[in-house]
Amino acid sequence: MPDILHRIYAPTPPDEVFRVLSTVEGLAAWWTEETTGAPGEVGGTIEFRFPKGGFDMTVDALEPGRAVRWTVVDGPEEWVGTGITFDLRPEDDGTTVMFVHRGWREPVDFMYHCSTKWGMFLMSLKSLLETGSGQPAPHDVKIDNWN
Amino acid sequence: MPDILHRIYAPTPPDEVFRVLSTVEGLAAWWTEETTGAPGEVGGTIEFRFPKGGFDMTVDALEPGRAVRWTVVDGPEEWVGTGITFDLRPEDDGTTVMFVHRGWREPVDFMYHCSTKWGMFLMSLKSLLETGSGQPAPHDVKIDNWN
Repeated sequence: MPDILHRIYAPTPPDEVFRVLSTVEGLAAWWTEETTGAPGEVGGTIEFRFPKGGFDMTVDALEPGRAVRWTVVDGPEEWVGTGITFDLRPEDDGTTVMFVHRGWREPVDFMYHCSTKWGMFLMSLKSLLETGSGQPAPHDVKIDNWN
Repeated sequence: MPDILHRIYAPTPPDEVFRVLSTVEGLAAWWTEETTGAPGEVGGTIEFRFPKGGFDMTVDALEPGRAVRWTVVDGPEEWVGTGITFDLRPEDDGTTVMFVHRGWREPVDFMYHCSTKWGMFLMSLKSLLETGSGQPAPHDVKIDNWN
């Protein structure tokens, strides 16, 4: 099954990157301003909402300074059952984020879109870590005629 | 084998997008300024050079207004033998570009990097089509501690 892969780096300690990935305030500052739920609890649910829809995730794993793993439990049918992981690696006095969105059943057009879009959102995360300011939805970078 | 997928859109006719993907001048304006070779000839070779290395491609197919396909014949070992395709679709009075970099043997760390980097370069292509100005190397957006 095809996966979406990305890699970014920020000169930020892994513990701080982990905080941004495991709090409502942090997630709302780079992915979507409409974030609610319990991203800091294993087994908790997070609700991400966008102008055109949204996703609900279950938190599968939280390893402080090391990893965050979610499973999509509601949203577009192509996403339900897929998994999203952020693996954090201390490098060069900062953190490399290895991102995977795995479990897509087919490389549908929407997967092409989501791959580019994830890249933009991860650059928003990088910007947040570096400058204190990201571009979460609805202020996100538009890539195509779907958004 | 895992693939890198991306999707962008620009309000530009497919013939113009095709021109940018099949001329040295066009490719140098969004991917890397150091582009030489024969991107407009099937069977021709294109040399793309970056501050840290480069890639040579053979042109496999040129379908005006519809598609451009290359095979990597020299460069980093992970890239040699892989294929790159740009499929152009007329949509909403412009063009959707469906991009695939296929044939990676393993999802190595470099593939994560290249996936994000391709996203940035395709946004450079989008910017070029929309505004007349892209961000080709060495002016490209940096994503991680590799570039």
